[in-house]
Amino acid sequence: MKDALLYEGKAKQVFQAKGKPGQLVLSYKNDATAFNGEKKANFEGKGRLNNEISARIFTSLQSRGVESHFIERLNETEQLVHETEIIPLEVVVRNLATGSITKRLGFREKTLFEPPLVELFYKNDDLGDPLINDDHAKLLSDITDLELNQVKEKALIVNDRLSSLFASIGIKLVDFKLEFGRKADGTIVLSDEISPDTCRLWDLETEQKLDKDVFRQGTGNLIEVYEEILRRLEGLSW
Amino acid sequence: MKDALLYEGKAKQVFQAKGKPGQLVLSYKNDATAFNGEKKANFEGKGRLNNEISARIFTSLQSRGVESHFIERLNETEQLVHETEIIPLEVVVRNLATGSITKRLGFREKTLFEPPLVELFYKNDDLGDPLINDDHAKLLSDITDLELNQVKEKALIVNDRLSSLFASIGIKLVDFKLEFGRKADGTIVLSDEISPDTCRLWDLETEQKLDKDVFRQGTGNLIEVYEEILRRLEGLSW
Repeated sequence: MKDALLYEGKAKQVFQAKGKPGQLVLSYKNDATAFNGEKKANFEGKGRLNNEISARIFTSLQSRGVESHFIERLNETEQLVHETEIIPLEVVVRNLATGSITKRLGFREKTLFEPPLVELFYKNDDLGDPLINDDHAKLLSDITDLELNQVKEKALIVNDRLSSLFASIGIKLVDFKLEFGRKADGTIVLSDEISPDTCRLWDLETEQKLDKDVFRQGTGNLIEVYEEILRRLEGLSW
Repeated sequence: MKDALLYEGKAKQVFQAKGKPGQLVLSYKNDATAFNGEKKANFEGKGRLNNEISARIFTSLQSRGVESHFIERLNETEQLVHETEIIPLEVVVRNLATGSITKRLGFREKTLFEPPLVELFYKNDDLGDPLINDDHAKLLSDITDLELNQVKEKALIVNDRLSSLFASIGIKLVDFKLEFGRKADGTIVLSDEISPDTCRLWDLETEQKLDKDVFRQGTGNLIEVYEEILRRLEGLSW
């Protein structure tokens, strides 16, 4: 199924798909990292959980009209996706203030952002993925004004769809990070993954954290909370 | 001429103007600070030079249709200005990449920004004046979408006017920081100061730095280069 390893990131490996030009195999690893790679650990089962969660979320989004690079889940830890040219932006959507933004800009914990707040970060490990503005994004990522607006609109549509999806399983979507890629025909689609690694997910009633913050903050068992997310997603009819 | 001290900043004191409601006296200090206040020094004559330079620049801008809080220079170190409500934004315009942006975003030194790059920073010493995007600015500074666009347009007009002004005296305007304030009638005008403390000014031929970078980097005599700026400005016909 796989040809050459093209790229190894912190949480995934990317392979050329065998005999399928223009398609890639994403292999989800068990590694977890935080604070720009300063904190690291390995969790048996994490790759399987994120592969399955991300596949379910991309499938749900596609059925709700949001196109992504996702084609299908291949096995426990791998999924097939369309090859895209990476746009070096991390697009963050925030519904409630928590994490870095409370320290960076002084927003009080749980400040409600309505409309949701969209932030762009330059995807560059050497620079620590710095916050940027729209003009920086256009200079650093070879994206037009129109495309940047489309990306931000898509991020807000994803927020809308995922907020409903998670609300239906008793979870508040607090914030999340998206990445986008450019297909061969030039169109821009959602790429990377959507999982408890890339979303902050709080139980609606107890506000228990069901995401990577349990690892960042050392306050819980990562595998248990990722399993809880998958368990609740499995209970949904699609 | 002065009543109560209202505020003391790193480079200026602000007094109520005696018997002139709605007007303030800005008193330029000899203090220089850099790196968010970490580096400090006192330069005899700096207050006088910045008061005179800033007065000349505001006067020049007003004659070219750019409204500001400036009314008149009162004496060696003081000027009279209209009282405005501070908008807690620092608006930076960059024509060439140098300083923080080369480290923060990896732009090569002297990268040409065309059109000029506009950046917003949240004026907050405790947070280290962080870079923000337009949506942050609206949340943090009580400014509307329309007003924010006006502020950015005004910053680009100032860049245009000042680039010509400085070019005519053999100086490249590399980048600068503006602040804006809201007048009693709600309109937004240029405020604070425009001086070698707030602009990067390079000799057009030699690229010698004629601004606060000589203090930041310890590479020259601050008073001598500020005097050079004033000497060249005095040579202009207004």
